[in-house]
Amino acid sequence: MDGQIVRRYLRQPSSSEDRKDSNNVYAKDVSLDEIRKAHDTVRKDLPEYTMDEIVKHNAPSSGIWVTYGVGVYDITSFVPKHPGSDKVMLAAGGAIDPFWHIFQQHNTKEVLTLLESYRIGNLRADDVIGTKDLHDPWSGEPKRHPILKPATLKPYNAEPPASVLVDSFLTPNEFFYVRNHLPVPEVDIKSYELEMENEKTGKSKTIRFADLLKYRKHTVTATIMCGGNRRSEMMEVKPIKGLPWGPSAVGNAQWSGARLCDVLRDMGVREGDEEGHVQFEGLDTDPTSTPYGASIPLAKAMDPRGDVLLAYEMNGQPLNRDHGYPVRVIVPGVVGSRNVKWLGKIIVSRAESGSHWQQNDYKSFSPSTDWDTVDFKTAPAIQNMPVTSAICTPASGETVKVEGGYVTVRGYAWSGGGSEIVRVDLTADGGKTWTVAKLDESEKGTGPGRHWSWSLWTAKIPVPAGQKGPIEIVSKAVDSNYNSQPESFANIWNLRGVVGNAYSRVKVNVSK
Amino acid sequence: MDGQIVRRYLRQPSSSEDRKDSNNVYAKDVSLDEIRKAHDTVRKDLPEYTMDEIVKHNAPSSGIWVTYGVGVYDITSFVPKHPGSDKVMLAAGGAIDPFWHIFQQHNTKEVLTLLESYRIGNLRADDVIGTKDLHDPWSGEPKRHPILKPATLKPYNAEPPASVLVDSFLTPNEFFYVRNHLPVPEVDIKSYELEMENEKTGKSKTIRFADLLKYRKHTVTATIMCGGNRRSEMMEVKPIKGLPWGPSAVGNAQWSGARLCDVLRDMGVREGDEEGHVQFEGLDTDPTSTPYGASIPLAKAMDPRGDVLLAYEMNGQPLNRDHGYPVRVIVPGVVGSRNVKWLGKIIVSRAESGSHWQQNDYKSFSPSTDWDTVDFKTAPAIQNMPVTSAICTPASGETVKVEGGYVTVRGYAWSGGGSEIVRVDLTADGGKTWTVAKLDESEKGTGPGRHWSWSLWTAKIPVPAGQKGPIEIVSKAVDSNYNSQPESFANIWNLRGVVGNAYSRVKVNVSK
Repeated sequence: MDGQIVRRYLRQPSSSEDRKDSNNVYAKDVSLDEIRKAHDTVRKDLPEYTMDEIVKHNAPSSGIWVTYGVGVYDITSFVPKHPGSDKVMLAAGGAIDPFWHIFQQHNTKEVLTLLESYRIGNLRADDVIGTKDLHDPWSGEPKRHPILKPATLKPYNAEPPASVLVDSFLTPNEFFYVRNHLPVPEVDIKSYELEMENEKTGKSKTIRFADLLKYRKHTVTATIMCGGNRRSEMMEVKPIKGLPWGPSAVGNAQWSGARLCDVLRDMGVREGDEEGHVQFEGLDTDPTSTPYGASIPLAKAMDPRGDVLLAYEMNGQPLNRDHGYPVRVIVPGVVGSRNVKWLGKIIVSRAESGSHWQQNDYKSFSPSTDWDTVDFKTAPAIQNMPVTSAICTPASGETVKVEGGYVTVRGYAWSGGGSEIVRVDLTADGGKTWTVAKLDESEKGTGPGRHWSWSLWTAKIPVPAGQKGPIEIVSKAVDSNYNSQPESFANIWNLRGVVGNAYSRVKVNVSK
Repeated sequence: MDGQIVRRYLRQPSSSEDRKDSNNVYAKDVSLDEIRKAHDTVRKDLPEYTMDEIVKHNAPSSGIWVTYGVGVYDITSFVPKHPGSDKVMLAAGGAIDPFWHIFQQHNTKEVLTLLESYRIGNLRADDVIGTKDLHDPWSGEPKRHPILKPATLKPYNAEPPASVLVDSFLTPNEFFYVRNHLPVPEVDIKSYELEMENEKTGKSKTIRFADLLKYRKHTVTATIMCGGNRRSEMMEVKPIKGLPWGPSAVGNAQWSGARLCDVLRDMGVREGDEEGHVQFEGLDTDPTSTPYGASIPLAKAMDPRGDVLLAYEMNGQPLNRDHGYPVRVIVPGVVGSRNVKWLGKIIVSRAESGSHWQQNDYKSFSPSTDWDTVDFKTAPAIQNMPVTSAICTPASGETVKVEGGYVTVRGYAWSGGGSEIVRVDLTADGGKTWTVAKLDESEKGTGPGRHWSWSLWTAKIPVPAGQKGPIEIVSKAVDSNYNSQPESFANIWNLRGVVGNAYSRVKVNVSK
């Protein structure tokens, strides 16, 4: 593939304005392989640079250059638009190959084409990193159940079909959605160590898996939901950079482990001294050895009613590798991303986790905030999740049978922060009439404000005898705070596509 | 006023179907006084009954009869439609005069006309209760500040103009909305006694005001909101029986008193033994000496993070009579109706309060649930309140000045259950663009999940230069659980008109 071919699939940017829009410009008739080769192809119309020159361009003041294959790219104007510019800056003045080797969601026509549009030169041949030189971080990934539909393979992100969710109150471990940010670490339980540090007292210590078992075993049934669950529905309003999750980035399981408050008391944290945060670090790391990280308020961690666990069992089984073997944090009622897997370190701190995922992701903004205007410091990190529901069967586009004048609809509803679902209303006539769903008998929480599980529900919705053509079925849940879902995604749209809890809508055809 | 006149203002019901609809039938040209006289007028076309006969009709099986003035009424078919049929049944087989003497919200053309439509006879003259025979329960009401706009005078229910709310973070005591269900009791602090009973242990005791002062004084800044706040907006969708509250049945104050958890520990309640409820009874009573009553979960009461108070001070002053002198309950984050005033008794129980207000009021249902289908047992009593916001200035219909291309809008936002307001978005172009309001510096809560105060906010909303005609300004708040307000009242309409937290909307004219 030479410069000619590169130009064939790229609309050559003639100005920075053009370049700005090239995000969505790629020729549909060019294969991913062809596009990928562009980055291994010397462009004779552009100058050559050495790594010594490139490394000087590592800040906005000097311009931000990166290399990929033999390509040299000036991405200064792009950095502020990247979801998490802090992550991009790790590669500033160097090769992005090792990062993209891990974050393979960049391996798309769209992203590679966008990158090529920023090309300014060629890297001297001696400085090029061959892919073969890179350790394959994905060689140790676990096997997954084929029922899971991956959104990305590296890192592995997958959800089951929605119809599977309503089959059981406890989601089987192998069917539980997986949201990994990095390669799954390989942990030997015999040598596993959990570091603990209390920045407030200066105290630190390391415990082993067997030490964790000495704490009283506590079991909590809790739903975990990805902050981006249902993002694909929000994307219908306006595009979003992020995984296009359906409604199944959620599951409900029985988790067992030590209570975090018990462990923290042994670290000198006293009840009443609850200002601050508990930071968690995973054993999963990026090419700079930076671990996945997140934090929760110390008050949530220390509240015995908060039921936060260092869990080693899921539905009575040891955690499997995708779900955090051997130890993960379970923070009931709180967004999935704080339920840190493969737990390596706990830090009691006055500060929140400084990680990308705490500071510059998993936050929501006004629908009018875009990548040009967003200031991540202005929004709190998502903790408790809002009330939501989703219709799991029938699926949109299905033809459903009307029996005795009714169609049967099933789904889940959940609210974060320990709230209980008190009602799910459904309509098939645009809100003129509402049918109240029957909430399936489910395990009750352990008290007011400690209801961590979802509610599965069934509704029989009347369909007029003469119904012709498709109908739209809509669900909305109400929780014990009497919060209810917002009607549409339009007014809760946000640039990260998180906390998407608008009414659930499916369009189906009816047959008698 | 004789039978002729009665017939002039009543469309004579010819069937029960007609009668069903007579709710909204009254001649607008007939005065309240004329209608009132109907009930003191013998209808010669109807038979006479004695109280001995009437008393036998006190159940659905025998028919439900009541008397009012000289009128005898068969209200069997009406009882299920009354908001709180349990309250009506107190008068079954007897006179409703003493009840309506207290619940003077019945003293309207509409209600009196409806009653007359159920007339079946005349009460024997000797059995009639004269109004002069009734003690006036309203003779001891306190004076109120004229800024309060009463919805009803007996009982007294009033709110300030919305513009007053945004003047100060702490609402002045005299401007704080008043929601009384019964006459204000006259309490002598010297003889005041608070009864306490623990049904779980059988223990009971009585303490005096001075005993309460011995507990450590705890101060909490908390917003109290009536469950029916903003009902007038919900009524625009479909009529509701209830006080037509505007957006000002809410206020924020600093409350001081003993923590309920401290008092309950002295009643033998241990932490961990938190199943059950704490019932509160007021010293305000109805004609059958039944007190106002409500309850909250014992877990909320015992949680030191729940900040429940037996308060004796409001904004540094002893409680005034309208706000519960000498002692009221403050349940931060929870609907106003559980913040029982003039506290007379506390009962630790396995059961919720059996009171009308706990069981058959202050609950919400699907928009399709009406008085014919409602079963109050199917919904939980409102405790934590949902996220809401209201535009306080400008008011609907005002002409506002555009300055530098912007109009300035102010309001409040609040969420129950200890959630904090993280953002208020406003739009003046139907949601095409949203402006994020500036949250005024306010007292922060005492930790995550313990933010009990409202947030006042200001927004400068851009108005297009060529704007002609009125604009609709809309606000929606987002809380720390990322719950947001539902868009319209239509889909959250409920027959009691409670938890009305849809977007706040004002239509204003703009002038340059």
